[in-house]
Amino acid sequence: MLAQPHTKYRPFPAVDLSDRQWPSRTITRAPAWLSTDLRDGNQALFEPMNRERKLRLFEELVRIGFKEIELGFPAASQTDFDIVRGLVDGGRIPADVTPMVITQLREDLIRETVRSVAGARRAIVHFYNAIAPAWREIVFGMSVPQIVAMVEHHVRLFKALTAAHPETEWVLQYSPETFCMAELEVSLEVCNAAIAAWDAGPGRPMIINLPTTVEVSTPNVFADQIEWMHRRLDRREHLVLSVHPHNDRGTGVACAELALMAGADRVEGCLFGNGERSGNLDLVTLALNLYTQGVPPGLDFSDIAGVARIVEACTALPIHPRHPYVGDLVFTAFSGSHQDAIAKGFAAQDPHGIWRVPYLPIDPKDLGRTYDSIVRVNSQSGKGGIAYLLERDRGIAMPRRMQVEFSAVVQRHADASETELSSEDIWKLFVATYQAPLEQGAYRYLSHALHAAPAGNRIELRLAEGGDGPAVALSGEGNGPIDAAVAALPAPVRIDHYEQHALGSGADARAIAIVEMASPDVAGSRFGVGIHESTTTASVLATLCAFNRLHNRLQPGQD
Amino acid sequence: MLAQPHTKYRPFPAVDLSDRQWPSRTITRAPAWLSTDLRDGNQALFEPMNRERKLRLFEELVRIGFKEIELGFPAASQTDFDIVRGLVDGGRIPADVTPMVITQLREDLIRETVRSVAGARRAIVHFYNAIAPAWREIVFGMSVPQIVAMVEHHVRLFKALTAAHPETEWVLQYSPETFCMAELEVSLEVCNAAIAAWDAGPGRPMIINLPTTVEVSTPNVFADQIEWMHRRLDRREHLVLSVHPHNDRGTGVACAELALMAGADRVEGCLFGNGERSGNLDLVTLALNLYTQGVPPGLDFSDIAGVARIVEACTALPIHPRHPYVGDLVFTAFSGSHQDAIAKGFAAQDPHGIWRVPYLPIDPKDLGRTYDSIVRVNSQSGKGGIAYLLERDRGIAMPRRMQVEFSAVVQRHADASETELSSEDIWKLFVATYQAPLEQGAYRYLSHALHAAPAGNRIELRLAEGGDGPAVALSGEGNGPIDAAVAALPAPVRIDHYEQHALGSGADARAIAIVEMASPDVAGSRFGVGIHESTTTASVLATLCAFNRLHNRLQPGQD
Repeated sequence: MLAQPHTKYRPFPAVDLSDRQWPSRTITRAPAWLSTDLRDGNQALFEPMNRERKLRLFEELVRIGFKEIELGFPAASQTDFDIVRGLVDGGRIPADVTPMVITQLREDLIRETVRSVAGARRAIVHFYNAIAPAWREIVFGMSVPQIVAMVEHHVRLFKALTAAHPETEWVLQYSPETFCMAELEVSLEVCNAAIAAWDAGPGRPMIINLPTTVEVSTPNVFADQIEWMHRRLDRREHLVLSVHPHNDRGTGVACAELALMAGADRVEGCLFGNGERSGNLDLVTLALNLYTQGVPPGLDFSDIAGVARIVEACTALPIHPRHPYVGDLVFTAFSGSHQDAIAKGFAAQDPHGIWRVPYLPIDPKDLGRTYDSIVRVNSQSGKGGIAYLLERDRGIAMPRRMQVEFSAVVQRHADASETELSSEDIWKLFVATYQAPLEQGAYRYLSHALHAAPAGNRIELRLAEGGDGPAVALSGEGNGPIDAAVAALPAPVRIDHYEQHALGSGADARAIAIVEMASPDVAGSRFGVGIHESTTTASVLATLCAFNRLHNRLQPGQD
Repeated sequence: MLAQPHTKYRPFPAVDLSDRQWPSRTITRAPAWLSTDLRDGNQALFEPMNRERKLRLFEELVRIGFKEIELGFPAASQTDFDIVRGLVDGGRIPADVTPMVITQLREDLIRETVRSVAGARRAIVHFYNAIAPAWREIVFGMSVPQIVAMVEHHVRLFKALTAAHPETEWVLQYSPETFCMAELEVSLEVCNAAIAAWDAGPGRPMIINLPTTVEVSTPNVFADQIEWMHRRLDRREHLVLSVHPHNDRGTGVACAELALMAGADRVEGCLFGNGERSGNLDLVTLALNLYTQGVPPGLDFSDIAGVARIVEACTALPIHPRHPYVGDLVFTAFSGSHQDAIAKGFAAQDPHGIWRVPYLPIDPKDLGRTYDSIVRVNSQSGKGGIAYLLERDRGIAMPRRMQVEFSAVVQRHADASETELSSEDIWKLFVATYQAPLEQGAYRYLSHALHAAPAGNRIELRLAEGGDGPAVALSGEGNGPIDAAVAALPAPVRIDHYEQHALGSGADARAIAIVEMASPDVAGSRFGVGIHESTTTASVLATLCAFNRLHNRLQPGQD
């Protein structure tokens, strides 16, 4: 890399607009949307879509709710011409959807383009030509007056050609390329020439579309450029002001948002940001950004995974796992503190209130995504996610100190395995930690009997010593089964905490009892778990489990 | 999707900052960089990096030029603790690189964190706690005064703990989470409390790091928040003001850029935007955005493909083909007008001047990428790309009208095959179009002889009629070999254009002759090509080629 890039690159000049208004504005309504998936998106694919894929994507765009769809470059590709003509002739364009077709400014191309779409109820013909200095000087060798004359000439030609097809409502869209790199005065002069040549006004609709064909500045400069034009364009009230951001600097969405604050009415882009090089504006992200601010986007992404499948099939390009809103990983949280906050947020969320679950800028359900994938557990995870998965999938609500104990078990396992743990993996660790001690511990549970006694309960416990050793009979009294069981145990222990709740519901419900037990002989405490149809038996099992865990270190990694 | 999202989501409130300065600023120097690939990036992977992968990525981050690297969460993961301790004890952290470790505000965690990194020459300990309303209310149930007291308490503990390790220069970094969603007054109060408790100043370095833990607004609002804080923080001159953008709304890079304009000195992020959910700020994109504005980023991406390979291997996540600067597709142009402009731009580029090739915001060579992949040809392509590939790979410079003729051939083929065409495919079509007619046309070339004659040259042509028919002898005179050959041909034709240039160089160089021929009997003109060691023979072959193409329609799709 160059040590001194200033010898080769220069900063993009700022716009002189000290009284800019856009930084104080917010976006309160959705823009008009133009999907260029079938044109700018299509022309940037390794393999452009065939007829079948183009039609499939067209139908999906209509279903999502796009009212303006760019269909292609009919004068440059026979495939495109046939598709456009076929859609028009076949009556396959819904009444509220307007097709758009693009053309360069050459007489034969314009004639062919008008031919491709004539007869549609309404049609946008998209003129573009390069006006930026590098293009004027390097590519075309034309002066500004020559460019203005060329634009005027071809707009007048278009006006004449379309007059012969009054059955179609013709809309002219004019794009000065590369607007963002051109002198603003030149852009304004050329746009105003096109506006005058078309005689834009009532009954003569026109769109001025300002592209960042290549991103070359921070997004605030683009917003300044848009506001500068917005304030100066002739017949502004009769124009739709559109922007067409690309994404070379990774700021396409930001350019669109700031441009809408700066006066733009309409955006062009592609689903999930397909398009030349680093892509066009991602229409899905922009729409859902609006949605999360309470602005109805007018586009339907309630099954975002379904849209993604169709787009991936048609473009043969993947969607990245971190792509906003749609990526496989965007509704996941591996980190413990995030998982903890999300679990609490779900519990606290008012189903009819304002969405405020921490770390989730949108309710996954609004996109047809479930909560299933939200919490992932690996060695970076903490108690929150583990507790959430156990509660969601097994109905087990652990007290907080038990979460700390069990998450240490999970974490050691995750550190050692270096993989993500599934909810099933976590359940297996839970069983190994809290159920195995009843089978393999110092005293295996065989049976018990509970009788009324002066202090409350008297318990007769039958246990197998050493797991499969001889049965021993123990007895104790207390004011409940746990007290009695503790009294019966062969070593002195103390119960620090006890709780019990139902697992499942109805006749099949079982009880889970959880006890926290301490002993003068062992540092810290241990939790024990008992699960049984009988709440009494569950309590006895939990007590025995905790006792065995205190007195018997099981296999390494399990305790 | 909800028809009325305003019942569930609300617009993010604007910041009252009518005298904001940032929209008029430009970025003139690179920020301090903090890579959190090994922490925030790592905790968001399906499978966190093992020790080997973490060390490999650490070494690559050092090589790229990062001077501050967050190593992990040592108090929460034994793997992280061992790696940090191992790097410090092994002397593997270069003298100019400072490690950072993160911890929550809990005494045992802070003690463990200090232990993990004590003895390093310099170390940043990164405190974070949640202060935003949703977290205060839902997750922790704490009031603002309680939070302030907790922060002060743990900063004082840290001050005491680090006083015992004067061999290390300790830097405190404090991050109020989720800054972007918190009331600015609360953020300021908590940050100022941390600043005072640490007694930030000369010899007591401190970083205030303001995250968009979750993006919740348009990027200009974040810039307002940063400028608001920048103007009000206590001891501002002794602080490094840092930002930590995420990318939930696809505007992480924009947030970083506008924040730098608003007063931030430092950014945190990951290579290629890895990180929780939609990722962290993409440090590569931000660095190269600066680079293309003439600002030296201080990071080395001169072999960006090599960096990408290491990151993909360590994270087990792919980089998208449209990812800015690095994706497979970002230096490609399929569309004809783009290809044409790029080809002209390369030809016009001053090797020592300011970079101004259309459609390429950066010279691919600066990233170690070649031009090879720039021009891709499919059915959406035009003459520019085809001409560029033929010239680059075969040395054949076609005149413009011939480009139009041949691109129609290529386009029909691409339309029919629905695939991308390689440079080799295009060469085969060129041979089939311009070389096959000499072998398979109406008159196959056998030999010729050229003699001095009154008008200049006299040619004796031996041709095989019908390709493999009987040899016929023809003769003609003209002021050169082409004139003479035209005179010898069995039907009247006219040469409209002629040019010849060398193919290759040195003793092996051959000549390519190109003629454009018209006939009163055939509409339009045809080009003919002859390639031979002898310039005379090349001219004769080109003439015969054009003649055969005029008079013999070869197989469909070839002409």
